[in-house]
Amino acid sequence: MTFTDKLKSIQETNDTLLCIGLDTDVQKIPESLRARPDAQLEFNRRIIDATQDLVCAYKINFAFYEAYGARGMKTIADTVKHIPSSIITIADAKRGDIGNSSSYYANAILNEMGFDSITVAPYMGRDSVDPFLFSEDKGVFLLALTSNEGARDFQMMKTSSGRRVFEEVVKKSLKWNAKKNLGYVVGATKASELKTVRAMAPTVPLLIPGVGAQGGDLKNVVRYGCDRNGELAIVNASRSVLYASKQDDFQSASRLEAARLRDAMNSVREKYF
Amino acid sequence: MTFTDKLKSIQETNDTLLCIGLDTDVQKIPESLRARPDAQLEFNRRIIDATQDLVCAYKINFAFYEAYGARGMKTIADTVKHIPSSIITIADAKRGDIGNSSSYYANAILNEMGFDSITVAPYMGRDSVDPFLFSEDKGVFLLALTSNEGARDFQMMKTSSGRRVFEEVVKKSLKWNAKKNLGYVVGATKASELKTVRAMAPTVPLLIPGVGAQGGDLKNVVRYGCDRNGELAIVNASRSVLYASKQDDFQSASRLEAARLRDAMNSVREKYF
Repeated sequence: MTFTDKLKSIQETNDTLLCIGLDTDVQKIPESLRARPDAQLEFNRRIIDATQDLVCAYKINFAFYEAYGARGMKTIADTVKHIPSSIITIADAKRGDIGNSSSYYANAILNEMGFDSITVAPYMGRDSVDPFLFSEDKGVFLLALTSNEGARDFQMMKTSSGRRVFEEVVKKSLKWNAKKNLGYVVGATKASELKTVRAMAPTVPLLIPGVGAQGGDLKNVVRYGCDRNGELAIVNASRSVLYASKQDDFQSASRLEAARLRDAMNSVREKYF
Repeated sequence: MTFTDKLKSIQETNDTLLCIGLDTDVQKIPESLRARPDAQLEFNRRIIDATQDLVCAYKINFAFYEAYGARGMKTIADTVKHIPSSIITIADAKRGDIGNSSSYYANAILNEMGFDSITVAPYMGRDSVDPFLFSEDKGVFLLALTSNEGARDFQMMKTSSGRRVFEEVVKKSLKWNAKKNLGYVVGATKASELKTVRAMAPTVPLLIPGVGAQGGDLKNVVRYGCDRNGELAIVNASRSVLYASKQDDFQSASRLEAARLRDAMNSVREKYF
């Protein structure tokens, strides 16, 4: 099955655009789990168990795991194994290097660890991105416009063509999409630019971080991030779901918050699509 | 000791600008080592033993190790431990993420693994770079202009100011350099642009990949990459040194090639500085 078909399928089955970001900070999880040697993994397992019928994807930010060195890499691999195979897995690794190095990253993350997709940084250009695009059943989310403040520094800069840098990234990289497995990261905090990217790339998956703790507006995110069928937007929330409760009721609290986000997005979908 | 002082000190002690990139591909190392479970680490150890008086730095590209998952992370850590403490270690990890994620990467790589410095991708802007700049004894090499073909795609794009994107990256990021520990990656394949960056940033370290296998011109690299004292250029060679011989004489062959590169660069230094 192609990456896009798998994404559409789970978005329809679970009737959801929600992605949960497993940015698991051991200092923030319930005290009863914190002392376990496998605290991160066990917390992830319980979040997955509690929310798997409410999401279309789980996104794993490598930074939160590489902090633990070799053990952290194993936690990532074991977390991926615990995610049902019908759900999209996203390696939020933001890799991007010269060709042979990118090939190693692509193989390690998409083949060995078995992720369905990966986030990739565009700065080094085509030959740094191409190695990740090797298979139509593996998706690539190229950073276009991120949700942080620093997005203004270079991504929003005007080029001599009149377009901004992130628009040039989308325009140019769309030509690299022979296998139809390329999408973009566009921050939820930038509604009008989200509209711009969706207009340039009407049929690709968009990974949209920044709702919840980062304050992106859910209504505009869904309205402008979806394709014309109200699909292919993957809306990520991390902290607001993971740490909905710091007590032992965290599974039900996270489930409630995930359901709330899913339902809120679905009301917007009903209105506009 | 500050990062820049440590760099100057080893460049003077070993009279060299050479950095060896430990991009160790198990398929390319001598057969007698290849079957060992610790083949990558043992090869690295022997290259370090054979060349440590000829270099100012060793650069470790994470892609070649992450391919081996948890074990690869341990190989990186063990390789760093084998490098004499007077020599600069560079984590070629090209990280860059939103603030808290960058903080995790910075801590994992610069504190836990003990690297002296790291390469960082600029696309996400200031708050993605700042967490790496926390200490004056830890260096940051921001990607400005890379040595690959894809450098043309976005880095060389003209902005509305008339400057190219990589020049904007240098211009803007120089303002973030309060601790005087920021430098740049500038590919050896771009001599006139190397001159441009050195003119904009006369006193910072420049990490220059792309000599040897990638074909950068050693003379221009040294002439335009050094500061006005003929220092602070770190010129990286990987494949041409590591795989100088595929036989059991590889230690002496790598040493010979490293000495040849060092001496060739020093003749240019004698002429121009």
